[in-house]
Amino acid sequence: MIKKRIAVDMDEVMADSISRFQEWYGRDFQLELTLDTLRGKSPHEAVAPEHQPALRAYPNAEGFFRDLPVIADSQRVLQALSERYEIFVATAAMEFPNSFLDKYRWLEQHFPFISWRNFVFCGDKSILNADYLIDDNAYNFDNFRGEGLLFDAPHNAHDTRHRRVHNWQELGDILL
Amino acid sequence: MIKKRIAVDMDEVMADSISRFQEWYGRDFQLELTLDTLRGKSPHEAVAPEHQPALRAYPNAEGFFRDLPVIADSQRVLQALSERYEIFVATAAMEFPNSFLDKYRWLEQHFPFISWRNFVFCGDKSILNADYLIDDNAYNFDNFRGEGLLFDAPHNAHDTRHRRVHNWQELGDILL
Repeated sequence: MIKKRIAVDMDEVMADSISRFQEWYGRDFQLELTLDTLRGKSPHEAVAPEHQPALRAYPNAEGFFRDLPVIADSQRVLQALSERYEIFVATAAMEFPNSFLDKYRWLEQHFPFISWRNFVFCGDKSILNADYLIDDNAYNFDNFRGEGLLFDAPHNAHDTRHRRVHNWQELGDILL
Repeated sequence: MIKKRIAVDMDEVMADSISRFQEWYGRDFQLELTLDTLRGKSPHEAVAPEHQPALRAYPNAEGFFRDLPVIADSQRVLQALSERYEIFVATAAMEFPNSFLDKYRWLEQHFPFISWRNFVFCGDKSILNADYLIDDNAYNFDNFRGEGLLFDAPHNAHDTRHRRVHNWQELGDILL
């Protein structure tokens, strides 16, 4: 039997990059970046205009993607999914070239059951030949050939066009 | 009209990595690695057993992919193809994590008309959703959903299972 294939985004789906924004924003400006202020917005849109350039620059700074916390239940559910599906990790890393090695090592460390052969660092995700794409950015579904599953995140709170999944437990219920 | 999509491999198709093997082999062992000895073989298979570990290690060494010469006519023909097709660059960079930044910067420098959104660093190329794949490694065509075009290289000299193209001029004749 040919396994169906799931492509999984990294940031905000496997790796908690919002916590890094919160940490660095607190470090640099002594202010709190709450999940509430992030609703419907990118991190830089959620702060004062004079802080926006700093937040835009964070993802390209050394270490931003290093040691990010793992999103709850993603390891357990992806491990179970990998028995029934081919799992590819697909991250828009090309936007942040300094992130390449950190992202690679993070995946090796936290998801050792996914082969490096199944890592995809890309930009436009319409290049993915997969049956499902789990992603927190709805624009990645626009020309995707399979079915998009929108992983809940503060910034996509107002999107109503796609099937929303709230956490990995729910993804397991749907796909297993 | 929707443009068809071409995925293009980097090494030995856009970038001349054989010249780097020849250069470093000469530097380290004062021996010549001729194109003739490379027929039907990977570089490490073409040298004495005691030199094989060194050649296997080269692609993961600092600078291996930096400043590689551009394969003849690839810029001109890809520029012309990009008018009629969507062009994606798809390289199995995951095998050599230290190559990521060098490959990214090389593409930016030599192929500025291809957006970083269309760069794909991957392992298993069956993840590509494209109509054509131009590649020197026939195994990349095995589960590829489109048509493979085998770009002529010494190591693939004995492959007869795929349509062979000898150079970029010929690719232009076929695809334009």
